[in-house]
Amino acid sequence: MHAISSAPNISSHRLGELLERLAHFGRTANDGLNRVAASREDGAARDFLCHWLRHQGCRVCVDGVGNIYGIFEIASPGAPVVLTGSHLDSQPGGGRFDGVYGVAAGCEALASIRELARTHSQPISYNVGVVSWTNEEGARFAPSCLGSGVYAGRYTPEFALSRADGDGVTLGNALADIGYLGEDASPRAVAAYIEAHIEQGPVLEREQRVIGVVEGNWGTTKYIADITGAASHTGPTPMADRRDALLAAARLILACRAMADASQEQLLTSVGRLDIRPNSTNVVAGHVRLYAEFRALDQPTLDASCRHFEQEAAIAAESANVTVELDRVTDRRAGKFDPELCQLIEQVAADRHYPAMRLNTIAGHDAISMRDVCPSAMIFVPSAGGISHNEAEYTEPQHLEAGATVLTRVLWSLLTRRHPA
Amino acid sequence: MHAISSAPNISSHRLGELLERLAHFGRTANDGLNRVAASREDGAARDFLCHWLRHQGCRVCVDGVGNIYGIFEIASPGAPVVLTGSHLDSQPGGGRFDGVYGVAAGCEALASIRELARTHSQPISYNVGVVSWTNEEGARFAPSCLGSGVYAGRYTPEFALSRADGDGVTLGNALADIGYLGEDASPRAVAAYIEAHIEQGPVLEREQRVIGVVEGNWGTTKYIADITGAASHTGPTPMADRRDALLAAARLILACRAMADASQEQLLTSVGRLDIRPNSTNVVAGHVRLYAEFRALDQPTLDASCRHFEQEAAIAAESANVTVELDRVTDRRAGKFDPELCQLIEQVAADRHYPAMRLNTIAGHDAISMRDVCPSAMIFVPSAGGISHNEAEYTEPQHLEAGATVLTRVLWSLLTRRHPA
Repeated sequence: MHAISSAPNISSHRLGELLERLAHFGRTANDGLNRVAASREDGAARDFLCHWLRHQGCRVCVDGVGNIYGIFEIASPGAPVVLTGSHLDSQPGGGRFDGVYGVAAGCEALASIRELARTHSQPISYNVGVVSWTNEEGARFAPSCLGSGVYAGRYTPEFALSRADGDGVTLGNALADIGYLGEDASPRAVAAYIEAHIEQGPVLEREQRVIGVVEGNWGTTKYIADITGAASHTGPTPMADRRDALLAAARLILACRAMADASQEQLLTSVGRLDIRPNSTNVVAGHVRLYAEFRALDQPTLDASCRHFEQEAAIAAESANVTVELDRVTDRRAGKFDPELCQLIEQVAADRHYPAMRLNTIAGHDAISMRDVCPSAMIFVPSAGGISHNEAEYTEPQHLEAGATVLTRVLWSLLTRRHPA
Repeated sequence: MHAISSAPNISSHRLGELLERLAHFGRTANDGLNRVAASREDGAARDFLCHWLRHQGCRVCVDGVGNIYGIFEIASPGAPVVLTGSHLDSQPGGGRFDGVYGVAAGCEALASIRELARTHSQPISYNVGVVSWTNEEGARFAPSCLGSGVYAGRYTPEFALSRADGDGVTLGNALADIGYLGEDASPRAVAAYIEAHIEQGPVLEREQRVIGVVEGNWGTTKYIADITGAASHTGPTPMADRRDALLAAARLILACRAMADASQEQLLTSVGRLDIRPNSTNVVAGHVRLYAEFRALDQPTLDASCRHFEQEAAIAAESANVTVELDRVTDRRAGKFDPELCQLIEQVAADRHYPAMRLNTIAGHDAISMRDVCPSAMIFVPSAGGISHNEAEYTEPQHLEAGATVLTRVLWSLLTRRHPA
């Protein structure tokens, strides 16, 4: 346990202003965000962030996949970094807190720490940094958590840069277009990573808690199913001759839902995207690319559901006289965050009298990539109505403030720990 | 019955060349066509057609919705017209015979008739014309058969011009862009309309016939279903809280198929297109627009299936906790073509020893619009493998020639009839 008596105090005004400014780039008519990774809007948000970080005295680096690091060298130029952050990219028609909140809360923490550091007397062992990871959402370029995945060694930079969007534009070209195909080295000596994020689900609100201490993550497997039939006229082609890729897709969508319904909340499934060709009223679909997701806290449950899905794909193929080819594009195993960091977050929340609870994240986050690199943890704040990936995404200002306060004090506690070496 | 002794002979070489030239505009890598209505490619094909018609001595008119008429005034400037033709627009990734064949066969007929007219001695009562109708496919702008529908008074020109494609471009603007928002009057005194077309189904090939005498059409009803749920995260959103528009769409797709399967080939159904928002892997679909079609030869069967579909829509809405709003966009009732014209086609085919049979068209055609205006009929030629709306669409050269020969001789027979007035 560490003394946090001389802890920094955040400015909720500055935090609100940061969030407001960051909500500007790609804002939709309904106050959401259209800011997919490496878009022009993402570029403008990145410009703002870099400018803000430099203004705070940070050294700003952009690595080879566009991850942005703002390092405040509060200890010494060579000292390891305690890192916080999240992502600035959004879903198409997404909300203005998902990811952005973690970056803004990190910036606010950094500014508060910088202010306190001017007058404090405690020795500081680590530098502090804010990171914005590239393409967390995976909406424009699959897979998700690409920037943090490269940092953690899950993917090579070449793999990441070669990912293409629906128009065939690669991430590499898109980053170059907005000026964020960087050449800087990423900071390698990271002592810990803490990410603040909105919950994106209904649990904290339902349980009337303000702080979620994220102790682990559900496992997630994602498939791309390439369904190939034959385009034909929807009129004169006899039903028995049709090789309807969309019919097979429909069967798979219902099969996924039935698997979740049968699991008593142990398994979550979804199909959120279909790419249909030619997608014309009058033409039996010749090809459908279907994107399916499976999530479970219990890894054997997830593994069994994947086997089940693969059987369902074969059944759907046969019933519609089409072929289905499955590509298992994401396999994120269920796992745990750092127990000591979870305890520290819990203690800080208790000190500030914020009602807190432990939970597991169902969504994927950059912190899951970072767990492979250093002790990592996450702090959740409530999502009103559990709504996310929706323009109506909302978190109460006092909850935003609570999360940033806990984040700042956790970071401060880590910075003022005695260096283990 | 009419003498066809001094009948025109077509040039199969010229017909093949015309088809080859018309296949050039929007040709795909697999020898199909990407030439949706009022696209640049459609514009280029129209330019070629107008040039060809003028070269044949035709008066070319372009009306206010872009229909192109080439009138060869073989009788006298004021005489009524015997009209033939079809359409130049294609499905995305469609074939090079659908529609194009009817225009090319009409051109070939016109050229052959013109040659014979130089030397013939029979009195000619009518002028002859070739028409290319705008947006028959309905792939870019819904509904289909829009140009002929305006001509026949089913739609106003204002309605047609205001139809918008997926990017919000109206037909009016698209026609203006390619220079085909015409100002000419369309010919009003049309004595008969004969359209040659590929069958787009497997019947003629299976029955080893070369000429299809189309005596009527199946009824067709098309719906657009607007399915509205709520976008949410595919991870943390509990299954019970999801309002998944794509789940409801999948149920409707399977319901449509089940209705057809239960009908013993009396009903054809299909869903060929879904517009999904946001269509992102990680987001429960908040909105889906689904395009469904129902076809039956027996109108009461079709009416009953529409009532059934409307019930299924309500069930799908309730089961996925979404709303479904149905818009019945097309109601083409089952009906008959002109019996005398059918007899004439049959007689001409028999005279030339082409194996023929009567059938009903399941697909919609401009001739169905024209039936409201004047005696109308259709001549089908076989589609290899019954394949259409596919780049692999194919008709044997000798079948193309047979269809054009029958068309030409039917037109000649009509032109040389004594004027009823």
